[in-house]
Amino acid sequence: MARPRRNEHIRDELLERGIDVLSEHGYHGTGIKKILDVVNVPKGSFYNYFHSKEQFVSEIIDKYSTDLLERLDQYLEKTSDDPVTAIKTVYYTAIDELHEKGLKGCLMGNLAAEIAGSSGECRMAMKQAFELWKERFVVLIENAQEMDLLRNDLSPEILSDIFWNTWQGGMLRMKIDNDTEPLKKLVDVMLDVLYR
Amino acid sequence: MARPRRNEHIRDELLERGIDVLSEHGYHGTGIKKILDVVNVPKGSFYNYFHSKEQFVSEIIDKYSTDLLERLDQYLEKTSDDPVTAIKTVYYTAIDELHEKGLKGCLMGNLAAEIAGSSGECRMAMKQAFELWKERFVVLIENAQEMDLLRNDLSPEILSDIFWNTWQGGMLRMKIDNDTEPLKKLVDVMLDVLYR
Repeated sequence: MARPRRNEHIRDELLERGIDVLSEHGYHGTGIKKILDVVNVPKGSFYNYFHSKEQFVSEIIDKYSTDLLERLDQYLEKTSDDPVTAIKTVYYTAIDELHEKGLKGCLMGNLAAEIAGSSGECRMAMKQAFELWKERFVVLIENAQEMDLLRNDLSPEILSDIFWNTWQGGMLRMKIDNDTEPLKKLVDVMLDVLYR
Repeated sequence: MARPRRNEHIRDELLERGIDVLSEHGYHGTGIKKILDVVNVPKGSFYNYFHSKEQFVSEIIDKYSTDLLERLDQYLEKTSDDPVTAIKTVYYTAIDELHEKGLKGCLMGNLAAEIAGSSGECRMAMKQAFELWKERFVVLIENAQEMDLLRNDLSPEILSDIFWNTWQGGMLRMKIDNDTEPLKKLVDVMLDVLYR
């Protein structure tokens, strides 16, 4: 029997809504039915679009990362700010958005904590997303080092890795304290003191 | 009708097993039944011990934190190492244990990512656990600053906060990369370079 024709619009909408629901409820807290109800799709047809919940979530991780990186690239392309100011602008904007969206944190950090150990497929999607983010960040830090805006005794790779760690841990603290203010201070201390 | 008498041994065992199961499967991935089966307790009697899953998990967070801090205090009491070496020893030991336990990460970080936004009771337990950890860490950093082993231009509170963030983010990276090696480098770079 031929598979029913897929509607790409519905597929995109499932991924889009999936980002919101997963950010709020996590992997195990998100029933596929919850997302299908929002998009108004009968449960049986989910498997016309995705083989499994795991594949669905790994595609959501791809989409979440691609959307963020596209916005980052667009901003970096047109800004005339120095690289340190550019990094600050990107992270201040992220903090404003965390605030607007109710401090849910980063979908990737949340899913890494919950399922990176149990889902190989999602773990690989996260690994790729991290590497793509790091490519951009290493260039920014390298440029800042060349302009003598950041310390030169550690490689851009190490400084990128530690910045990612600190930011992700900072979002966990934000969730525990229910407050975004320390995140802003964190970005400033990292770039103005520890990385200077 | 009088409530059946509780068996404190069973209560402790439920908390103990709960730590393992929650570390592996997270809040939503852990059915109470899974823990009861291991401890061999019928489902109905769970509510003799705990009002709700949320209370159960908040007590698990308390227990997890208390156990870790007791071990930390015992070590600090008897060590003659300088404070920086002491911090390294504590974190290297933690890395060895992460390795032994299959890189599940820190129960507190994992639960913060998953439910700090949705469960006020668990969030408060995490907040308290963090503050108790920070009390110890601030003293270690302050002592190290007085011995001129760590930089003095940032407060012990800020250095403690950033260390916690970086460590927690490092554990997310560990789960994404399925590798503990970068965690060891992270501890060294933080203490030997960025905080020096």
